[in-house]
Amino acid sequence: MDKRKIVIDCFGCDSPEEVIRGAALAAEKYPGVELILTGEKKSIEDTLGREKSFPRIRIADAAEVIGNEESPVNAVRRKKDSSLVAALRILKEEEDACAMISAGSTGAVLCGAVMLLGRCEGVERPALASLLPADNGGFVCLADCGANADCRPEQLAAFARHASAYVESLGAKTPRVGLLSVGTEEGKGNALVKETFPLLKESGLHFIGNVEAKSALSGEVDVIVSDGFSGNVLLKSMEGTAKSVLKRLAAALKKHAPEGSGGFIGAAFADVMKTLDFNAQGAAVLLGVKKTVLKAHGSAVAETIVSCVRQILAMQAGGFDKFLTQRGKDE
Amino acid sequence: MDKRKIVIDCFGCDSPEEVIRGAALAAEKYPGVELILTGEKKSIEDTLGREKSFPRIRIADAAEVIGNEESPVNAVRRKKDSSLVAALRILKEEEDACAMISAGSTGAVLCGAVMLLGRCEGVERPALASLLPADNGGFVCLADCGANADCRPEQLAAFARHASAYVESLGAKTPRVGLLSVGTEEGKGNALVKETFPLLKESGLHFIGNVEAKSALSGEVDVIVSDGFSGNVLLKSMEGTAKSVLKRLAAALKKHAPEGSGGFIGAAFADVMKTLDFNAQGAAVLLGVKKTVLKAHGSAVAETIVSCVRQILAMQAGGFDKFLTQRGKDE
Repeated sequence: MDKRKIVIDCFGCDSPEEVIRGAALAAEKYPGVELILTGEKKSIEDTLGREKSFPRIRIADAAEVIGNEESPVNAVRRKKDSSLVAALRILKEEEDACAMISAGSTGAVLCGAVMLLGRCEGVERPALASLLPADNGGFVCLADCGANADCRPEQLAAFARHASAYVESLGAKTPRVGLLSVGTEEGKGNALVKETFPLLKESGLHFIGNVEAKSALSGEVDVIVSDGFSGNVLLKSMEGTAKSVLKRLAAALKKHAPEGSGGFIGAAFADVMKTLDFNAQGAAVLLGVKKTVLKAHGSAVAETIVSCVRQILAMQAGGFDKFLTQRGKDE
Repeated sequence: MDKRKIVIDCFGCDSPEEVIRGAALAAEKYPGVELILTGEKKSIEDTLGREKSFPRIRIADAAEVIGNEESPVNAVRRKKDSSLVAALRILKEEEDACAMISAGSTGAVLCGAVMLLGRCEGVERPALASLLPADNGGFVCLADCGANADCRPEQLAAFARHASAYVESLGAKTPRVGLLSVGTEEGKGNALVKETFPLLKESGLHFIGNVEAKSALSGEVDVIVSDGFSGNVLLKSMEGTAKSVLKRLAAALKKHAPEGSGGFIGAAFADVMKTLDFNAQGAAVLLGVKKTVLKAHGSAVAETIVSCVRQILAMQAGGFDKFLTQRGKDE
């Protein structure tokens, strides 16, 4: 099998060093990948360490960086020599490059991917899909989790199609698709949900109806479809509530626990926090553009990048690229 | 001081017996209240127990019950002899009746309150306001948490006004009002949020800007304003996530704990569950109608009704009625 060529945008995030170290770790861990790192060459070389050689890492020099505070469209247009634009250009131009990872500005990754890679057939705007840690140890894919604050029903139907293909590539058989709403019965929800419902019913997907936010982690669906506003509210309230509950329970245990119980309590918390790590599965995937794009959190650490590479390999093995090729025709 | 006259709709919920028992407990606990129970007289008398007399409980016979599956508008129009319609009629007609409690159908309570009591000035549709248990031991008022799936900016501004007066009556000084969004900066959010932002800025309320779902429990605001769809997603995802995290932690502690640690772990969980009880504050309040209406959960137990009565007494003492009287003019 040919090497999987993955492009990594190393800048525009909190710690480029972590991203570069993560790339080095991934290159060691996965002999089947070839990595192309974009960003200021000298700085990347310094972090990789000149003494060590990484035969499967290539550096593509790009002097500019796109910051979080910049207007995404303008930044992508003007900063042609930025690490992000360079990464997207390589992904587009090198046919065997299969995916890109960036921990940079979400807006810029979105705009750049649409402008440089183009959208799949039937997609107006791509969605961000996150994998939530379900109670059964599996995951639930939430799309859109924040890219599109205002959506139309056709967009939600497109999110459903792409998210379904995404989780199928990760191993879910005939993924169960649910529509985020305020009640499970057909007819419950806002105007957007009511208009999206029949589209999903006729979509040919395994649509199981509305799903409430309280069952998001139950594992009763594989995909939750939502506009990016409500999806983001759902995602962030889960993160915030999980943190709040853990804090309250830690305080209560401290109050009630006899001396010397700290050890096993710490171990239990560590276990749970691992199952609740909303970044453990790597990163959010941009659904609806012609090649695979992963958007890692701005605070990505080396391990995040390793997870991203693992996630891309899984998606490739599961046939996500084939889906994109079918859907990748120009509109 | 005159007695506080409170009307209680005893039917249309999971357990009318619990509601009736709760009314009896509240009458005993709060000598300053007079309760009017609506519903089938014989059944209420049976539950209260004929041998015991409750001088401050009056029963208003109403044979019909409105179910959750009925169309709210039709049910309120047709079932004039239902426990809910009877309760609302008494609340409207008896000038000294200050509030109503119902654990019946949310839709019917909403419709009935609008049709029978009328809306306050400047209110198109009332909102449901819930009190969330904040990390600092206080609470955060979320409005709307589910009554209006689709909203316009003016409606959100009205929710903010009423919710602010509500929490002020409960003791919050100059309540801090936040607008639920996907980022804290002005300009973040969907079209509704962007149009509501300037209205809140000019509202004369203590508007502190957008608030993200992840900080909902942080206590940094006293009021979170939202459309009823996103608000419901927020509320239910908090409930679901809290449950999920507690379950995961219980399992992890069981795995790691040495024999005999069950006692203090159970005590710690009980403490936390108490702080996370989303019904501990009584019930949701219907904001925007001319008199105080509390909507308790359909699964209300006796203690819920006692909490509701306590909540109404606090609101009365804090001047919520005065606010309603000022706002209570016909549109």
